[in-house]
Amino acid sequence: MNINPENLHSPADIKGLDNDGLAHLCDDLRAILIRKLSAHGGHVAPNLGVVEATVALHYVFNAPDDKLVFDVSHQTYVHKMLTGRIAAFLDPARYDDVTGYTCPSESGYDLFEVGHTSTSISLATGLAKARDIEGGKENVVTFIGDASLGGGMALEGLGYAPTLGSNFILVINDNQMSIAENHGELFTHLAELRATNGTAANNIFKALGYEYIYVRDGNDIASLVKAFRQAKDADHAVAVHINTMKGMGLPCAEANKEAFHYHGPFDATDGNSLRVDTSESYDDIFARQMLAHMAADRRTVTMTAGTPGSIGFPPAARAEAGSQFIDTGICEQQAVTMAAGLAKGGCRPVFGVVSTFVQRAYDQISHDVGINRLPVTFVEFYGGATGGMNDVTHLGFFDIAMISNIPNIVFLAPANADEYVAMLDWAVGQTDHPVVIRTPGGRVRHADGAVNTDFFRYDTVAEGSDVAIIAEGNLLYTALEAADILRSRGISPTVINPRILSQVDAACLDSLKDYRRVITMEDGIVDGGFGQKVAAYLGNAPVRVTTLGLRKEFIDKFSVKELLDANGLTAEKVAEAAMA
Amino acid sequence: MNINPENLHSPADIKGLDNDGLAHLCDDLRAILIRKLSAHGGHVAPNLGVVEATVALHYVFNAPDDKLVFDVSHQTYVHKMLTGRIAAFLDPARYDDVTGYTCPSESGYDLFEVGHTSTSISLATGLAKARDIEGGKENVVTFIGDASLGGGMALEGLGYAPTLGSNFILVINDNQMSIAENHGELFTHLAELRATNGTAANNIFKALGYEYIYVRDGNDIASLVKAFRQAKDADHAVAVHINTMKGMGLPCAEANKEAFHYHGPFDATDGNSLRVDTSESYDDIFARQMLAHMAADRRTVTMTAGTPGSIGFPPAARAEAGSQFIDTGICEQQAVTMAAGLAKGGCRPVFGVVSTFVQRAYDQISHDVGINRLPVTFVEFYGGATGGMNDVTHLGFFDIAMISNIPNIVFLAPANADEYVAMLDWAVGQTDHPVVIRTPGGRVRHADGAVNTDFFRYDTVAEGSDVAIIAEGNLLYTALEAADILRSRGISPTVINPRILSQVDAACLDSLKDYRRVITMEDGIVDGGFGQKVAAYLGNAPVRVTTLGLRKEFIDKFSVKELLDANGLTAEKVAEAAMA
Repeated sequence: MNINPENLHSPADIKGLDNDGLAHLCDDLRAILIRKLSAHGGHVAPNLGVVEATVALHYVFNAPDDKLVFDVSHQTYVHKMLTGRIAAFLDPARYDDVTGYTCPSESGYDLFEVGHTSTSISLATGLAKARDIEGGKENVVTFIGDASLGGGMALEGLGYAPTLGSNFILVINDNQMSIAENHGELFTHLAELRATNGTAANNIFKALGYEYIYVRDGNDIASLVKAFRQAKDADHAVAVHINTMKGMGLPCAEANKEAFHYHGPFDATDGNSLRVDTSESYDDIFARQMLAHMAADRRTVTMTAGTPGSIGFPPAARAEAGSQFIDTGICEQQAVTMAAGLAKGGCRPVFGVVSTFVQRAYDQISHDVGINRLPVTFVEFYGGATGGMNDVTHLGFFDIAMISNIPNIVFLAPANADEYVAMLDWAVGQTDHPVVIRTPGGRVRHADGAVNTDFFRYDTVAEGSDVAIIAEGNLLYTALEAADILRSRGISPTVINPRILSQVDAACLDSLKDYRRVITMEDGIVDGGFGQKVAAYLGNAPVRVTTLGLRKEFIDKFSVKELLDANGLTAEKVAEAAMA
Repeated sequence: MNINPENLHSPADIKGLDNDGLAHLCDDLRAILIRKLSAHGGHVAPNLGVVEATVALHYVFNAPDDKLVFDVSHQTYVHKMLTGRIAAFLDPARYDDVTGYTCPSESGYDLFEVGHTSTSISLATGLAKARDIEGGKENVVTFIGDASLGGGMALEGLGYAPTLGSNFILVINDNQMSIAENHGELFTHLAELRATNGTAANNIFKALGYEYIYVRDGNDIASLVKAFRQAKDADHAVAVHINTMKGMGLPCAEANKEAFHYHGPFDATDGNSLRVDTSESYDDIFARQMLAHMAADRRTVTMTAGTPGSIGFPPAARAEAGSQFIDTGICEQQAVTMAAGLAKGGCRPVFGVVSTFVQRAYDQISHDVGINRLPVTFVEFYGGATGGMNDVTHLGFFDIAMISNIPNIVFLAPANADEYVAMLDWAVGQTDHPVVIRTPGGRVRHADGAVNTDFFRYDTVAEGSDVAIIAEGNLLYTALEAADILRSRGISPTVINPRILSQVDAACLDSLKDYRRVITMEDGIVDGGFGQKVAAYLGNAPVRVTTLGLRKEFIDKFSVKELLDANGLTAEKVAEAAMA
């Protein structure tokens, strides 16, 4: 018996299929995935690898009664197809009906809004404990990628779950990859388990109290169904280790798993991108500058926590950097605290990190780097609303509030590439401060003249009177547009690029005390940001202060233009505020 | 040959001793420890357990050339004795010459200022990598407690270290205890290794690529010296698992390891405390209230991450709570995200957590709880400068800035026990918000009248005019004293207890726009705090705003009184500011 994917409304629709029908369904779903993803982009290779496993999960378990928790939840496209959302994969006009992650507001089959790695085991221990308290009998199942399993919280959860002494099913989706290659002995161990068909000595899952089941071909539906049936309704913790192929069924993705981890629209026949952007980019500038620094001094190292591509280090750049490039896997805590050790040992570590992920190492930034005042440089990518990430689970505009209030950390926000490079050069060359540099998002801009390298002072870029606009990062250019508008209306504003957001420039602010108004603009939430520091500093002065920035809220799939407009961060609105 | 401890100046002084001399030295050091700690208080049981191991480390390795990293570094009293600081243990007048943690400004033998768990392996991977880059040959040694090993970053580091492919020595100090008992299968596994004299199948260290050495009696100096010599100068990662006894040599500490993990001054003959405080305490109030909530509804659970005693749950209270009390071990990430799962599953989790440790789960609070808006309640202890912790590694005054700027989180700061209980009751009874309640530090105060339970609005406790003081937590009482001073000088101030710090009460602030001055007072850093929100909100009004709070800085061993005075947070200084 077969089912036409168009008739898939819920998991109940596949319960009657036999292995052949299931395999046929998998082929159909994979073809649909390739059609959508090549036109639309998305997490290509992860989803292609889990078609069979997802179908088998929904075939064997009874969601939503049985609880399925996915990790990272970007591998849930097939889960969405099977749970009432197939139209968002069949109909191009509805491609954007679904988000790229599990989303409870979309479906009751999605339990949590999660996009960072390594959350599923801990979440599932809570679900399992709640079940046990309430006397439930449902299965609690986590579906976790091998790279996610290597993160600290996943390892905490791995040790905790069996102590519950009740049903807990851990499916390890071992596709032998992180976003790029894996790093760490956990993965050597998984390789040993694969090589021995699950019989290796020193099985870490058995060591931690799990019943262990190995599935040699994790893209074979019959093997998966058998294994999941074996685990189902267990009264203890079971680890089902499945060996899957990332990118399965799409030759370009099988051949280049890293590039196709996440990919924009592409030609499915050859893998070529449909949109090629050859303009200058900040990640290339970062990589070029770091490669030069590393060549000049072997003690300089570039670090990533599993996202080398996002910081300008595809395989060729990594090869050039050699042992001076360090990838800790998706372990931001290890990266930050290892950086502290490197700095103590005389090296100059520069950790390139995506803004949304830097929050995974708050304690490490504060204590291991901050208290010890070690010269670790953090270069943040995708920061701010203008930084290029707009999933609710990957927002980049909380970093100023989070980091700039940690003592000893110098938080710098360049407005253009020349300031960016100058700040990076300064940070690598000094040993007095931990430094955070927030890469501007979007198209690369260049400075009009020489960069003022006294980064502890604000930089006045237009001298005026009466009104001052202090605008950081990309918003400096919006401020300059606002200034043009104001000048056309007879007002000559002062425009200031603050650059340093972790402290105020008292002398500069003192010079503004008798202005009519000061406006601050930041590409981050207002609460806890630099504008509130300015407002507080000027609280005793006659000048009125307007703090512009983003509202403190979690929002999904926003338009940058609309968001800036809604928060008064357009040139016209800033000009209006200045005239108020 | 023996050495008189008074003649201990550096590790070189013990290099010539034989095993008998070393054992004799250990006896002397233990006696000195007991004498100091019974008079002074400190981390009693952890240090008594590592006397022999510390002597053996310094006997076999050559610090400071060889690098020793301790975790948690509260077990370094003997290390301090051996590295030029014995006077601080011999001479009562100099007891406070040393801090309770490794401290680089005290000695070059101390590499990092660290007080949170689970940092050593990651720090040491940095030191080892720096050594390898620079062509060094020294040993890099981490000394980590079993409970610390269970934390997420330690587990990340555990998998990472062997990939360096060079000398890395991991000493696991297995004293079979966390602060309280251990929780998690890692500890069951360590028990299995101990029970089999290190020969158990499924050895997690071997699985992760370590050479493994087991020391059955980790308080026997000869066995330790032999094992450390075997590991020394290895060209790969070696795990030396030593079985030690927490509290060794002091009967009361051996018998009650939890109570003597950290203890104030006591009588060494019977273990009785020299100072007994029988006054009402907030942890008792918390425990009493939670036990009542748990008895009333079995879905209510109380959680801790390894610090049950700090939240009012000694063994008897834990026994009363039964399976509704959850201790995740020193795994704050697991605790917070498990709480999210519990809340999703219909439970009402209340996580009691020490302020300095809550920062170890920022990502989890923001995403797993915050984005998902799950009804998890966090009850923070030891928050603020008045909260009772003053080690630089355990400061409690960064929490307002850190947490209150996360969307969806309701951050409440009660000023007295009645507000505290009312907030806890409200938080447990609702399902709309994640809630943080910051327990006031110090002596318990009670409200004068009924508690205003509209916690989303500020509470005006004294109606006045011209000047308003908005003061949170304990500082409300300082504000009331300042108000008395002001009234004696003819000024009648309005005094406001804000209670909610994560948002402003617009209506209340609007009523103050034409005041001459508003003063905010907070028991936390000013940067990122609630006062700056007030200043920003009132930035467009004529009223002048003064934001009082703590300077953003890491400080060690401060006096509360002096710190408040230095930051203008005394009644007299607030009154002066109001009259300015």
